[in-house]
Amino acid sequence: MTTLNDRSEKVARDLLKQLEDGWNAGDGEAFGKAFTEDADFVAIRGDYHHGRGAIAKGHEGIFNSIYKDSRASYGLLQARALTDGVVLAHARSDLSAPSGPLAGEHSSVSTLVLVHEEGGWKISGFHNTLVAPTQ
Amino acid sequence: MTTLNDRSEKVARDLLKQLEDGWNAGDGEAFGKAFTEDADFVAIRGDYHHGRGAIAKGHEGIFNSIYKDSRASYGLLQARALTDGVVLAHARSDLSAPSGPLAGEHSSVSTLVLVHEEGGWKISGFHNTLVAPTQ
Repeated sequence: MTTLNDRSEKVARDLLKQLEDGWNAGDGEAFGKAFTEDADFVAIRGDYHHGRGAIAKGHEGIFNSIYKDSRASYGLLQARALTDGVVLAHARSDLSAPSGPLAGEHSSVSTLVLVHEEGGWKISGFHNTLVAPTQ
Repeated sequence: MTTLNDRSEKVARDLLKQLEDGWNAGDGEAFGKAFTEDADFVAIRGDYHHGRGAIAKGHEGIFNSIYKDSRASYGLLQARALTDGVVLAHARSDLSAPSGPLAGEHSSVSTLVLVHEEGGWKISGFHNTLVAPTQ
């Protein structure tokens, strides 16, 4: 039997895979395709961005600069349905950057708000925070 | 006429007021009451917490230590309905801490996922990131 939670987890894993593939191809447009047109995005410096176009363009920029040739790997922490068409998920990503101010290995934790719209599931809200070193 | 967006903004402002009042009273339980029983919370160090009890207890801890006598002020950035019973909102908070490792003034940007349940609206997902200084 497929439970609601199984379905939520599959939706989340599929979208994380899209993000991971887009990131590892260094392709801002492919990364952006996982998002709704009106998506909201909060990045690791607390900067807030609105809209798929801005998200795609912003990632294209970092893929060509500080995160050039970096590799990301996403793992799902949890996913649960809030209603039939909305899933709240959390993920951890591990990033390896060969150069730039964040060169090296680091991890982040993300909140993802997933919505079902015509054409399938998309990310409507994404918020990402670097995991601080243990004190 | 009250639009859907007006209603979403009111829901978000009411919950932000609850957080602000709980914070400024240094009352972890009052802060926690804004959350659903199964709420998810990602804090500024990328640490992930689950459940109202953990959120209330964690805040009670910081209100008695690093954030003792601190003052928080929340401002809504945007709120939009994803479905009838789910609102996605973003807020900025300004915090003044008199002592501890984060003494001084700093700001954060939050994503809030609000859900309607019996008894009213609650926060089901909260994610908070410090705004980095301008480079």
